[in-house]
Amino acid sequence: MLRLYDYWESGNCYKVRLLLSLLGIPYERIHIDIMQGESRTPGFLEKNPNGRVPLLEWPDGRRLAESNAILWYLAEKTRFLPDDPWQRANILQWMCFEQYSHEPNIAVARFWHFAKLAEKNRDALPAKMKNGYKALQVMDDHLESQPYFGADCYTIGDIALYAYTHVAHEGGFDLSGFPAIGNWLKRVSSEAGHVCITDGMGI
Amino acid sequence: MLRLYDYWESGNCYKVRLLLSLLGIPYERIHIDIMQGESRTPGFLEKNPNGRVPLLEWPDGRRLAESNAILWYLAEKTRFLPDDPWQRANILQWMCFEQYSHEPNIAVARFWHFAKLAEKNRDALPAKMKNGYKALQVMDDHLESQPYFGADCYTIGDIALYAYTHVAHEGGFDLSGFPAIGNWLKRVSSEAGHVCITDGMGI
Repeated sequence: MLRLYDYWESGNCYKVRLLLSLLGIPYERIHIDIMQGESRTPGFLEKNPNGRVPLLEWPDGRRLAESNAILWYLAEKTRFLPDDPWQRANILQWMCFEQYSHEPNIAVARFWHFAKLAEKNRDALPAKMKNGYKALQVMDDHLESQPYFGADCYTIGDIALYAYTHVAHEGGFDLSGFPAIGNWLKRVSSEAGHVCITDGMGI
Repeated sequence: MLRLYDYWESGNCYKVRLLLSLLGIPYERIHIDIMQGESRTPGFLEKNPNGRVPLLEWPDGRRLAESNAILWYLAEKTRFLPDDPWQRANILQWMCFEQYSHEPNIAVARFWHFAKLAEKNRDALPAKMKNGYKALQVMDDHLESQPYFGADCYTIGDIALYAYTHVAHEGGFDLSGFPAIGNWLKRVSSEAGHVCITDGMGI
């Protein structure tokens, strides 16, 4: 059985859990408490030298890190990653956007709130909020004329962007000014096989 | 002919120039002076709503942003992106590592020096240096037993990581403690069709 080294509250880990659920693939969850340094122990660094979760491990010992690379690999030959080269390019473009322009602002602001680090980072927080809102605006503008990100159907591009967008309010972001995002969040969460970020938390 | 919206000093833009050169694909360079706000004009935002270079434009009007998505699309069916799914997954893993753990530290430190913003960012610089060195250590450790990143041959995974690693000294990083990186840089730069980041600068 697949083994997912996982941190419950992490949107990056949730991306993998969501796709595994949509694909109906069973897996074992190993909780790595990043707040207690469990992703930086010698034992874990041997599995992922970059010291991060999610990390997916196969029964034959192969391991893959980086949420979006895991999504890409699992989604090959499924409806969540079309064959068309141009659609694939656009899906990957949005996944790169997520990791560079979206996650470092929206996820980090959420983490600072969650870990009670907002006060410590009070000088850096305004830039995170400004750039996070900029990323949300890019998404909302896109969704005004397109139902999904990179293809005309629900794909791993949407999964990547959904993970931290749907919990952006936990980082202090107000999504009420982005109606197209609101409608897209509903479309994504109504997919058969959808799970919530909190599903199974702590189990 | 392909048109590349390009900023000479950008390693992200250089990635695309390097692959286009290796593939022998001719293209037109359009200089976007990001220091003068040219990537944020209404005209450019119409081409890329995220306001970033590189942006690649096809004669039929199609456009693709995000350096690593452009690399992936151009490299399909070439020797720079193998067919093997596991190798592809590992190449993408390293490209995600580059955009999340490497570039935001090493490229940003270089940019601050280049744009004379190091003094303004003096409080943030130590974390950039620390995390940049951490990324370099992950690379060096990998290269001690593997010749390339994600496959046993030179691929777009190497191109993505080469772009900012080979100019890391411009951000204040000392590469002398990473001998495996030094050897890899030489291997990459000796490839037929290799171009330097400064080639054609300002032309």
